Amino acid sequence: MLPVEIIAKKRDGLSLSRDEIEFVVAGSTSKEIPDYQIAAWLMAVVIQGMDEEETVALTRAMAESGEILDLSEVAPIVLDKHSSGGVGDKTTLTVAPLVAAAGLPVGKMSGRGLGFTGGTLDKLESFPGFQVDLERKRFLNTLRKKGIVVAGQTADLAPADAVLYALRDVTATVSSIPLIASSIMSKKIAAGGNAIVLDVKVGRGTSMQTLDEALDLARLMIGIGRRFGRRVAAVIADMSQPLGRTVGNILEVREAIDTLQGGGPEDFTEHTMAVASQMLVLGQAAEDEARARAMVHSYLEEGTGLAKLQDLVSGQGGDASFVSDPGKFPSAPVVRDIGAPRDGFIAGLDAREVGLVAVALGAGRAKKGGPVDHRVGLVLHRKVGEHVSTGDPLFSIHSLSVDDSERAEARLLEAYGWSEHEVPAPPLIHQILPWQES
Amino acid sequence: MLPVEIIAKKRDGLSLSRDEIEFVVAGSTSKEIPDYQIAAWLMAVVIQGMDEEETVALTRAMAESGEILDLSEVAPIVLDKHSSGGVGDKTTLTVAPLVAAAGLPVGKMSGRGLGFTGGTLDKLESFPGFQVDLERKRFLNTLRKKGIVVAGQTADLAPADAVLYALRDVTATVSSIPLIASSIMSKKIAAGGNAIVLDVKVGRGTSMQTLDEALDLARLMIGIGRRFGRRVAAVIADMSQPLGRTVGNILEVREAIDTLQGGGPEDFTEHTMAVASQMLVLGQAAEDEARARAMVHSYLEEGTGLAKLQDLVSGQGGDASFVSDPGKFPSAPVVRDIGAPRDGFIAGLDAREVGLVAVALGAGRAKKGGPVDHRVGLVLHRKVGEHVSTGDPLFSIHSLSVDDSERAEARLLEAYGWSEHEVPAPPLIHQILPWQES
Repeated sequence: MLPVEIIAKKRDGLSLSRDEIEFVVAGSTSKEIPDYQIAAWLMAVVIQGMDEEETVALTRAMAESGEILDLSEVAPIVLDKHSSGGVGDKTTLTVAPLVAAAGLPVGKMSGRGLGFTGGTLDKLESFPGFQVDLERKRFLNTLRKKGIVVAGQTADLAPADAVLYALRDVTATVSSIPLIASSIMSKKIAAGGNAIVLDVKVGRGTSMQTLDEALDLARLMIGIGRRFGRRVAAVIADMSQPLGRTVGNILEVREAIDTLQGGGPEDFTEHTMAVASQMLVLGQAAEDEARARAMVHSYLEEGTGLAKLQDLVSGQGGDASFVSDPGKFPSAPVVRDIGAPRDGFIAGLDAREVGLVAVALGAGRAKKGGPVDHRVGLVLHRKVGEHVSTGDPLFSIHSLSVDDSERAEARLLEAYGWSEHEVPAPPLIHQILPWQES
Repeated sequence: MLPVEIIAKKRDGLSLSRDEIEFVVAGSTSKEIPDYQIAAWLMAVVIQGMDEEETVALTRAMAESGEILDLSEVAPIVLDKHSSGGVGDKTTLTVAPLVAAAGLPVGKMSGRGLGFTGGTLDKLESFPGFQVDLERKRFLNTLRKKGIVVAGQTADLAPADAVLYALRDVTATVSSIPLIASSIMSKKIAAGGNAIVLDVKVGRGTSMQTLDEALDLARLMIGIGRRFGRRVAAVIADMSQPLGRTVGNILEVREAIDTLQGGGPEDFTEHTMAVASQMLVLGQAAEDEARARAMVHSYLEEGTGLAKLQDLVSGQGGDASFVSDPGKFPSAPVVRDIGAPRDGFIAGLDAREVGLVAVALGAGRAKKGGPVDHRVGLVLHRKVGEHVSTGDPLFSIHSLSVDDSERAEARLLEAYGWSEHEVPAPPLIHQILPWQES
């Protein structure tokens, strides 16, 4: 096979065979096919697309480029979830404990924050002592013992995806539904969980800008999962404004703790409920969504989820006393409350811009490997659809310095849209695609 | 400017600004933009296209990446021609002398054969002593003294085109009309000629497969030329079968000599007439095409063009006695005449396949820099539309060995299509796009 012929085929809009796709993936990882040929191929894929058969082949080739974990020794069903990311997205911190509370093992590999989005590992590291880098053996032991583990990658999962992703990032070939779907699913399949809920966001604060795109992505990933014998469901949720009221590591952990105690903000509580109940159904702990929601509701009332969060933290060496006494978390040196600059209804709150302001404060990182400060961040007292009067608390800034705070204030005020008239809050959950036996 | 943003813009089908295109071209030549980003950009250009404004900007950026020759010190109008290549295409060998015969200076930089197509420089080197690598000073002096010069590149013309072409070749991004047009025109503009006839071929033996594509390419190149103050006309000619009856260096030179003496094959004589007469009109040596054709006709009858071929050969150190006495050219060791395997009309003669057979005999090169043998090649006694009876001479093979000859025979017989019924010869000249003052 000649790379240039495979590139030409995709350039002309033709479908590639499984052999051809495996050849490209193997060549990209071994570097036998130079980056410039892979880049041309990726651009042809982005513009001409791939059908489901090709996307499954790409997913398989990437998943099989490294180790595929076998979690069946731990339990017949291990739950996993994937979030397409966003701003203020602390869903794993509430959902993983709630699902584990129902006796379903949750073994999840998470990522760190990058660009305007936060990362679960950074949030968990707010707990003193918490370890995210676990040896595989310890990952499996913790999962077996505690029923819950959230770690960084314990093995070289889908290394071909890492190679291709690095190239996509610098060649404007990220925005492709088949490429995004195969990238996500190759890692999920390699990570070994066999029941997966996809938390697909849509809006300014994530990569899918329209509901149609998000649905296409979700349906494609569900189809891929099916081909690999995984039970997959999807929740399509709004990310036009941040999720919940906090952005920043400790602030989000505290909001998650509040939520697990039944005192979280309404939107994030509902989002938690939606994702967790799909996981309970997938994991066969509940017969249907209604019963699953009732279970989650009782866990929130009884604090059962909170206890599992303690298990998660202590299981990975963290100080679980912070769960029961969040007042122990340190505060940022400078905390300023900012009042609304005008009367009116909030018509918009740009999630992407909020994320970038939080990164500028030090809560996230613009480049891979940079440091984060766990204390800094934002609290959003009012969100889209709410009315404020001039001077009402609009947001608080937790920063390292007054200078940082003032820069954040100026920038964040620009992220709000205003209206004289009542504005409906955006729908939180756009759609749920439940698992269906075929 | 960020390369990834320019790539994304073209990926999304938007037009690029002149600044953006200059940034990409400069970055590709300096290697500040890595090959993989250029490759992704090229693929986006191939699929999404470029408008004339973008193509002009790309042409300009590539032309200005090196030196732009100024031939105005030699003459106010210097003629050039470009052929999009093909099999049996010895047009420069007849046209350049005929145009010089009218007193118009012809200063042309030509290329070598590659793949299935031959190259003018290889053909000219059939003359013992002929030098194709001229210093710029000698190029200008020869042009001034003899009125005719055909050499390899005397300067680093459009180096950015060479960089981009090398990358296009290995990333399936050759087949793009804007990229082909800007590649050709950047070199023509840098080479300094100000009146250019484009000899655009269409058919199996060249890159344009349909008349529409060839017309699009020609019109785009004429438009680009106009933007740079060049007078450009185009001849759209057939390349479904080889041009003339010979393929191979000495064989083609001898056919060109025959043609300049009025005894060439009909199709090649007509092609010579069409291209040369457009050049005479462009160079203002003739008022219109009819008068130009009459001039060319008289040059063929009187041998004036033949004398200029002698000037061309002697001006570059070659032995011009071979022009008046072509019997001096050496023959290939093995010459075999092959008879027709059947009765019938010839319905097709695949130019590309004929070119590949000639390369296999040693007349051309599969890879840049390989050697050629000037003696070997093919003589095609019958072409499309002609009738033959079994055993009539169909073609002759001039080869280095009997083995070579037999392999060529078997393969060449497959290149013919046959019909019981009369078949029209393909039109030789599809269309002429004459120069029009705007």
